[in-house]
Amino acid sequence: MLPRKIADSTVRRLAIYLRFLEEFQHQGRDTISSEALANRAGTTSAQVRKDLSFFGSFGKRGLGYDVHALADRLREILGLGHRYRVIIIGAGRLAGALVQYAGFSARGFEIKAVVDRDPAKIGHVWDEITVEDVADLEAIVAREAVEIAILVTPADPAQALVDRLVAAGVTAILNFAPVQLHVPEGVDVKNVNLAVELETLSYALAHRVPR
Amino acid sequence: MLPRKIADSTVRRLAIYLRFLEEFQHQGRDTISSEALANRAGTTSAQVRKDLSFFGSFGKRGLGYDVHALADRLREILGLGHRYRVIIIGAGRLAGALVQYAGFSARGFEIKAVVDRDPAKIGHVWDEITVEDVADLEAIVAREAVEIAILVTPADPAQALVDRLVAAGVTAILNFAPVQLHVPEGVDVKNVNLAVELETLSYALAHRVPR
Repeated sequence: MLPRKIADSTVRRLAIYLRFLEEFQHQGRDTISSEALANRAGTTSAQVRKDLSFFGSFGKRGLGYDVHALADRLREILGLGHRYRVIIIGAGRLAGALVQYAGFSARGFEIKAVVDRDPAKIGHVWDEITVEDVADLEAIVAREAVEIAILVTPADPAQALVDRLVAAGVTAILNFAPVQLHVPEGVDVKNVNLAVELETLSYALAHRVPR
Repeated sequence: MLPRKIADSTVRRLAIYLRFLEEFQHQGRDTISSEALANRAGTTSAQVRKDLSFFGSFGKRGLGYDVHALADRLREILGLGHRYRVIIIGAGRLAGALVQYAGFSARGFEIKAVVDRDPAKIGHVWDEITVEDVADLEAIVAREAVEIAILVTPADPAQALVDRLVAAGVTAILNFAPVQLHVPEGVDVKNVNLAVELETLSYALAHRVPR
């Protein structure tokens, strides 16, 4: 049994730990200390131990964590045994980058469809995926048994598209549109706002103590 | 005087509030309640009031916040009066999407240079920017007086490139490479990991209580 309510920031760190554990596996290492894992992940060993303690006991005193057992368990916790079927809404350049992004497929996220409303884009073939008409969104979601939608549209049409996705049964959305989406209980939205990331850097630059 | 140590999550919310305040400005609204701002930003009015209280008093009792004054102050806090000079390291598809991304320039982030190590990419012209040879990185950083670097490379070369950027005087890095970067004190790194975002959705799907 897993605890249901784990903070988003914890889940994010688990995903980062898994990335480094897989690196260690490729290097042929069998054990790893919480200190070494913390150092790679940019956190503290106390944080690593706390994060992992949510899910049971992985450590061997004096030996550290078993790299293979811990990686397997994190994949299971993160739901990565499964392959997820993904649709991309909006066929702009960012969508093109996402379709090409090898990291998605390697982690079990398979892009099955791309849709747009622009007749100039519909019918183009991207890596064996043909851009389809967003007018057919519901039929495409059903045909491909889509579980996750990636929204890469301007702000304006985003909420109406999300309402259609939710009505069609999609319950997980990765949102790149610069707008706060409203969804019913039971639907998860993660927002990625690239300008906000740059603005946190701007803040750091503006308030930097001179070196 | 601003407090130096504001949590990253607070700065991120300030950037999101600013986005919605600017929307309200375009709609011709002069005041906004903390409830309305919280609703748009997906948080609580208590959180809004707490976040803004760090920086002084913006509210008028019973009237809400002055949209224009608060937007101006948030731009100032976030250091957005300034225009920042940006270099992109790595000329792949994601870099192409970033160069096109209108949101960056609108917020004062000007992409001045793009570099790559692939001879097949060097010399290509992207929106009036010519892709240059990463071998000349230090000279390009000096020529363009670069303040922010966006790293869009594979994991392998990332740390060596960051070491060169830091030695050349760059102190703010937005990192898309799937690796934890090590930088000296006084250099800020923000990590954007698209696979980690999808994995937090995977976690939510795997542990969802059936509807």
